[in-house]
Amino acid sequence: MPDLQDVSSYAEAGVDLRVAEDLTNRLKQLVESTRTSGTTGEFGAFGGRFRVDEATDLVASADGVGTKVLVAAASGIHHTVGEDLVNHCVNDILAEGAEPLFFLDYFACGRLQADVAEAVIGGVARGCRNNRCALIGGETAEMPGVYEPGTYDLAGFIVGRRIWDLPGKDAVRPGARLIALPSNGLHTNGYSLARRVLFDNMGLQPTDAFPGSEQSVADVLLKVHRSYLDALRPALDQRSVTAIAHITGGGIPGNLNRVLPEDVNAHVDGTTWTPQSEFLELAQESGLGPKEMFSTFNMGIGLIVVAEPDRVTDVLDSAEAAGLAPFECGDIRVGDGEVRLDGI
Amino acid sequence: MPDLQDVSSYAEAGVDLRVAEDLTNRLKQLVESTRTSGTTGEFGAFGGRFRVDEATDLVASADGVGTKVLVAAASGIHHTVGEDLVNHCVNDILAEGAEPLFFLDYFACGRLQADVAEAVIGGVARGCRNNRCALIGGETAEMPGVYEPGTYDLAGFIVGRRIWDLPGKDAVRPGARLIALPSNGLHTNGYSLARRVLFDNMGLQPTDAFPGSEQSVADVLLKVHRSYLDALRPALDQRSVTAIAHITGGGIPGNLNRVLPEDVNAHVDGTTWTPQSEFLELAQESGLGPKEMFSTFNMGIGLIVVAEPDRVTDVLDSAEAAGLAPFECGDIRVGDGEVRLDGI
Repeated sequence: MPDLQDVSSYAEAGVDLRVAEDLTNRLKQLVESTRTSGTTGEFGAFGGRFRVDEATDLVASADGVGTKVLVAAASGIHHTVGEDLVNHCVNDILAEGAEPLFFLDYFACGRLQADVAEAVIGGVARGCRNNRCALIGGETAEMPGVYEPGTYDLAGFIVGRRIWDLPGKDAVRPGARLIALPSNGLHTNGYSLARRVLFDNMGLQPTDAFPGSEQSVADVLLKVHRSYLDALRPALDQRSVTAIAHITGGGIPGNLNRVLPEDVNAHVDGTTWTPQSEFLELAQESGLGPKEMFSTFNMGIGLIVVAEPDRVTDVLDSAEAAGLAPFECGDIRVGDGEVRLDGI
Repeated sequence: MPDLQDVSSYAEAGVDLRVAEDLTNRLKQLVESTRTSGTTGEFGAFGGRFRVDEATDLVASADGVGTKVLVAAASGIHHTVGEDLVNHCVNDILAEGAEPLFFLDYFACGRLQADVAEAVIGGVARGCRNNRCALIGGETAEMPGVYEPGTYDLAGFIVGRRIWDLPGKDAVRPGARLIALPSNGLHTNGYSLARRVLFDNMGLQPTDAFPGSEQSVADVLLKVHRSYLDALRPALDQRSVTAIAHITGGGIPGNLNRVLPEDVNAHVDGTTWTPQSEFLELAQESGLGPKEMFSTFNMGIGLIVVAEPDRVTDVLDSAEAAGLAPFECGDIRVGDGEVRLDGI
């Protein structure tokens, strides 16, 4: 067994979230310097808001899929990351109560291989069709010297329209319930660490079996980030949702806190579910403790809905009708704006 | 003098435009598979169109700044490429008759340096302020293994609203005039070739003097892509514009053709202006002929307006009021959808 002692933090696996957090604070001022009459959102929301007129309240988001693109490149499986990207963006604006209108992609690489680009953007188009979102443009850039040989990057931009005026953060009060919608794997976060553990430390190839699984490393790592649009659309139409957190980089603690006012805590009960086996294997192989694991990976929960107690059934029914197995995972209590992982 | 014989085509400088063209045809089908009720535009337009409702006709564009980011990285001058990006995107939607509403950026790098990211995104914010466009979101991604050490990439996404129903391509008829709005340098295209000539073949450093100039290589190459919003806004308000071509990758032949119906030609009179000295120096040092130069660089023209003869004065006045020196550069004649560079 290889020496895994040096994988002791996410920073050492190549991503320093503290630098990112400091930068975020600096960027907030830059963003606020550009406000116009249409800007209505708050910095740090899952999607940016722009009100064109009374009837048209737009939400937009820009995102990538992180180093999941390196897994795609290493595996030669290029047709899924585009769908990851669209679904990730769909969930980000869904967290602001919006349904998708249109999407644009940015695909950049060191050397353009038409078959690879077509497979990647084919995944984007499939994701758009599945979410009833029009792909209305994009850019394909060949940039030798910027990208490592054989690699590419993929970014996406989505614009949607608010289905209704989701109450959001300010309406999250003690007594509200937390409902978890399961992820189907890593989605698009924690890949720098997962790659380091599986490829660098364990020496696995994409075609090897994932530890403790009959599926290959590539199959497990490339499972497509789930879209929750259909699972939440009925609940949004019923106005049964108070706020939504999309669990991405930073995990449950780093995303559920984005919908908490300063005077409440979110208590997540870790005994209400068991993370998929890939998370347990990654914890074992990396030696990381629960706190670091929960700050890096979604640990089995892709999205958390905050709802009043009398609305919980609506949310559960909405997600179950879309084939998911949602569950209550905690509640909101008086506090100081923190996420507490109880029993973890 | 170094041997420049091998810089005989843009493909050899690292970018194969033929592969890109083939891919474009394949992508057209993918895009069309995602059409929804809101999609009204045509594939290949400068911006994608989406009609939310009668009152809200949106135009969106995604773009990068190509390997101009490598010049920024090599020079340690990071605060201008963000403004390039915004202005490029503003011009793309302006070409569809739209003014900016909001912008999102995607900044990705191998190792996050907060000062660099802040400088880059500070340029984005300045570009947004100058174009009265709100920066409502963005993504900052640290992706070790995707990006070459010390490099980053930057993509932008703009959404605007049509000022009026610009007639566009279908209204471009014989007898219409072409009005050129000067660029202020390379803008954001041709950088792979320029870098190869200046850095690789001539062995220059960013701080060295640009050939035939008192300015440094960095100063010449990093001049900010001009926004034409203010220069054309009065002419658009007067409804004096038939169609607009933003001169980017592919130069005048590869962009002016995008606003030509199949039964006309655009005749551009090469004797009506002299390209800036940097283009002449790049031609001399690379040994490239006029055809290749005009297919790679903007050659001094950043945007071409098609207008009916009785509207030419409106367009000239509009651009002059913004401090530019516009000029008539040709006309539209019966033909077969081609751009002719006369006298070049």
